[in-house]
Amino acid sequence: MSKLRVLNYSISTDGYGAGPDQDLDHPLGVGGRSLHEWAFATRSARQMFDMEGGDDGVDDQMWRRGETGFGATIMGRNMFGPIRGDWPDESWQGWWGDEPPYHHPVFVLTHHARPSFEMKGGTTFHFVTDGITAALDQAREAAGDDDIRLGGGASAIQQYLKAGLVDELHIVVSPVFLGRGERLFENLDGGPEGLEIAELVSSPLATHMRFERPTPA
Amino acid sequence: MSKLRVLNYSISTDGYGAGPDQDLDHPLGVGGRSLHEWAFATRSARQMFDMEGGDDGVDDQMWRRGETGFGATIMGRNMFGPIRGDWPDESWQGWWGDEPPYHHPVFVLTHHARPSFEMKGGTTFHFVTDGITAALDQAREAAGDDDIRLGGGASAIQQYLKAGLVDELHIVVSPVFLGRGERLFENLDGGPEGLEIAELVSSPLATHMRFERPTPA
Repeated sequence: MSKLRVLNYSISTDGYGAGPDQDLDHPLGVGGRSLHEWAFATRSARQMFDMEGGDDGVDDQMWRRGETGFGATIMGRNMFGPIRGDWPDESWQGWWGDEPPYHHPVFVLTHHARPSFEMKGGTTFHFVTDGITAALDQAREAAGDDDIRLGGGASAIQQYLKAGLVDELHIVVSPVFLGRGERLFENLDGGPEGLEIAELVSSPLATHMRFERPTPA
Repeated sequence: MSKLRVLNYSISTDGYGAGPDQDLDHPLGVGGRSLHEWAFATRSARQMFDMEGGDDGVDDQMWRRGETGFGATIMGRNMFGPIRGDWPDESWQGWWGDEPPYHHPVFVLTHHARPSFEMKGGTTFHFVTDGITAALDQAREAAGDDDIRLGGGASAIQQYLKAGLVDELHIVVSPVFLGRGERLFENLDGGPEGLEIAELVSSPLATHMRFERPTPA
């Protein structure tokens, strides 16, 4: 069965996955960009933006690992955009321009229904209003044999962790402090049960910790 | 001037420096011992307990770095013991037996006065009731040219961080989740101001992040 995996999810040393006050100019919240400096320094991420140079060490390997082999993505509504409450119209189509980097079906968790739509490059956005399990079922159906990436944000990941549905949790701890924002490990009524450390590596810019759910024998 | 330094302060991946429900049987709170597995695996820490073997890599180097060169220690009352409120008597002399591993003056932050006393090996415990700045002044006086180690717990470190008095913050992130307990980066009204990353290294058991206050030019 395809796995539900969180990849390259960056948090600050004080635990925040995004800064406060997300808006059009701050998709990652105020200060949130600093969490991703390690990614912006990798060769693969730079190539994606047609920039030269970049590091090809452990950060690069981990970044690439998180970008391939997925048949569907699930994300929370705040990762899709800054709009809260009812959709005023259908003009908002995500942060990513005409051709989002997903190239597969993306399931957006929301309380507010909206028709699916397709973008250039094979990304289709679907809006799921009946909860995280329904979204996972639809993503599995869409992904076939491929895995499903759980993109974020913090609240979406918390809900899947709490339900015990996450098979891999790869977080990247950046050596910065945000002080405020969206904490990843919050609202869990305890820790994320059942995940065990599978890999711990670091570069001067970031620490990668991969937790996995042990496969039943 | 001698520096105030936090060394080898272990936190879980979800940010806890100690588990909940500290008592006589759980000096580090329930589950708190798992934060220190990396230290128990080092050659130097094992030698301290007359045990053979152990790893001599980065964890060992960092552990040793945190154990030498200090002329005084400051700690919060909960790190000194499980007793809350007034001291019922003077029988509690810390967790560490007859010969505590400090071998220098230790200043315990408390709201409840108590006479100083000396233990075998040169450790003297002093009880400071007039706040963190007074404790730091006394520790500086006692330490002379040596640095001062700020031992913990989370609350004591928070108070010094908030006051901008910490010169070095070395935390060790263990790849475990506690789910509950004492969070280190809490009650700070924002991040710890002015500390910048100086070193980031990891072993398979732990990540070491050293933050320092840049020395004014």
